[in-house]
Amino acid sequence: MIVLKKDIYWSCNCGFRENAWLSYYWKCPVCGKPLNLDYEKRFEPVGGRGLARYSNMLPFSPIKTRGEGSTPLVFYEDGINKILFKLEYLNPSGSFKDRGSSLALTYAYSLGYKSVVEDTSGNTGVSVALYSKLYGMKCSIYMPKTAPRGKKILIKALGGSVIETENREEAALKVAESLNNSFYVAHTWNPIYILGASTIVYEIYEEFGVPDVVLTPIGSGGLFLGLHMGFRNLSLIENNIRIPYFIAIQGCSVQPVYEMIYGYRACGESWLADGIMVVKPPRLDEIVNVISTNRFRVELVNNDDVLNALRELHEMGFIVEPTSATVWAVYRRIRGDLRNKTILIPLTGSGLKTLDVWEAASRSPT
Amino acid sequence: MIVLKKDIYWSCNCGFRENAWLSYYWKCPVCGKPLNLDYEKRFEPVGGRGLARYSNMLPFSPIKTRGEGSTPLVFYEDGINKILFKLEYLNPSGSFKDRGSSLALTYAYSLGYKSVVEDTSGNTGVSVALYSKLYGMKCSIYMPKTAPRGKKILIKALGGSVIETENREEAALKVAESLNNSFYVAHTWNPIYILGASTIVYEIYEEFGVPDVVLTPIGSGGLFLGLHMGFRNLSLIENNIRIPYFIAIQGCSVQPVYEMIYGYRACGESWLADGIMVVKPPRLDEIVNVISTNRFRVELVNNDDVLNALRELHEMGFIVEPTSATVWAVYRRIRGDLRNKTILIPLTGSGLKTLDVWEAASRSPT
Repeated sequence: MIVLKKDIYWSCNCGFRENAWLSYYWKCPVCGKPLNLDYEKRFEPVGGRGLARYSNMLPFSPIKTRGEGSTPLVFYEDGINKILFKLEYLNPSGSFKDRGSSLALTYAYSLGYKSVVEDTSGNTGVSVALYSKLYGMKCSIYMPKTAPRGKKILIKALGGSVIETENREEAALKVAESLNNSFYVAHTWNPIYILGASTIVYEIYEEFGVPDVVLTPIGSGGLFLGLHMGFRNLSLIENNIRIPYFIAIQGCSVQPVYEMIYGYRACGESWLADGIMVVKPPRLDEIVNVISTNRFRVELVNNDDVLNALRELHEMGFIVEPTSATVWAVYRRIRGDLRNKTILIPLTGSGLKTLDVWEAASRSPT
Repeated sequence: MIVLKKDIYWSCNCGFRENAWLSYYWKCPVCGKPLNLDYEKRFEPVGGRGLARYSNMLPFSPIKTRGEGSTPLVFYEDGINKILFKLEYLNPSGSFKDRGSSLALTYAYSLGYKSVVEDTSGNTGVSVALYSKLYGMKCSIYMPKTAPRGKKILIKALGGSVIETENREEAALKVAESLNNSFYVAHTWNPIYILGASTIVYEIYEEFGVPDVVLTPIGSGGLFLGLHMGFRNLSLIENNIRIPYFIAIQGCSVQPVYEMIYGYRACGESWLADGIMVVKPPRLDEIVNVISTNRFRVELVNNDDVLNALRELHEMGFIVEPTSATVWAVYRRIRGDLRNKTILIPLTGSGLKTLDVWEAASRSPT
């Protein structure tokens, strides 16, 4: 079932507003800041599974699907709290990014684009390659040469091209030079990825309700902003919904949100959590604003924290990648402070893509 | 919700019958043949998702879950037929074996076992390691040294031990010598794995109905027998259900079912489909009997078939392992003969575990 709403608008705090079916903008054409998408929302889940179930909360539904969304929710009691693990790593390309990609590429296809470009440290590249090919679009992914080898093999297997760069920043520069008439996904800017992540909340709300606390990693902030938006949207529509308390997690190596909130840089290394090493998140101001206004907090993890948490998650039967273990690392540290709470822990990316990383890390001290 | 039926019986064609809560037998203690499990069935799906939804069709439901079952069903039209892809590779350990393992380890735990042993070429080992640890049982996996490296790393990460053997047969011999008081999963013998696979059918029946044709790989035959049992069970309970026509698929390298049905051995190599290289399936007579009685057919594939089909599946957005591509290889060959049919194609195992295999195979001619 295809649902394409007519009244969808790009909007910016600077006042820019334009119907989103006219043109795509990855950032505001007036002030250069990240855009939002405005449209009418109703919480009326339709039948079936996947993102289309929440078409009334989205600007459009995926035209084609590969089974993204409707991921399992696993309940776990540790004697202190009740934990809800949301198994986002069981999405078709192995990460929660498939929610955003399935929407973003539906939009690109609907606008008639024939090719797609993106810069990414990994999971988004795999996801974008999958959905680009699904819609018959050529796909080029710019990524740092240090990105996990498995993710590069995968992008090529899915029919995409990989262009390696020195680092994450050069990937962003190079992709900007190569735009031409391609659809630049720009997932760290694109509000569609935030909408994608918000559908995680709608699934949890239908299956369980609203948790007390949400632990989430922050790289570019798409997941954090998406989860927060999901609960906020529900609270505006449904009665008696209280937005959970968020604990946002960054790695010591790259901690822009932590620095901006607390005014200093803590030390430590966290290259194992490669998926959240985003030096300049385009939506940094927005993230910091949500955290400050709501008095949420930010926690940091280092490589040892990640490795220990990853080992524990594996032995609990969750095959996730190191970046996904950052949330469990923080939960282990603070669980005593959160008694008798229900805690949402999204597990974001599959460990099947990063077995090399796991093998190397578990052999040698980090 | 835990549902443990009291009246569950091991049963054998030789006349052996015993309540299954008294003792576990991986084969008939009287005649040495594979056993069945007898119990009362009703098709009354309960709420929720996963295997517990079909507890009325099972001898027991999983006590603990990691999100197994309720996998996505993707509809695909190729202009000739309507294909239903069942995405079994999105199970928690990356294969449909999680259905059987979640049941088998629930049973082992309920009987008080403290340790588990198994011989396998890969996916079952990963799956058994995951569910053994979940129930606090020590797990030792005997597997050929040629099994994909990623699967060995995974078993260890999940807390299991890997004991490498020269080949699949030596693995079976060694595990038999090491039984002691351990639970020997014996997935190629164990009827619980057939029951696990049968739940795939109940999900498809609820979501879609009954397809015309089922394409399925046969290694030990657990998937084939499980899918057939699922439709047969439904046909005994519900009105107007016709069992679909099955096309069973083996690799040229190891083709015991093909040989026994057609009386000769075709040539070719298919080591890429390592997951179905079972030289002596314990249930060979049973498999051949189902195929002959119903006039089903068997098709063979070689490495080129697998590689081409795998490439196509990847570019269609299905990240599966080579063994899973055998069904698509056969579909591509025979699709013209099957006009306007609905075809069920289960995609059994995740390609994220076998990226090395894919990379090597796509570089060099097979």
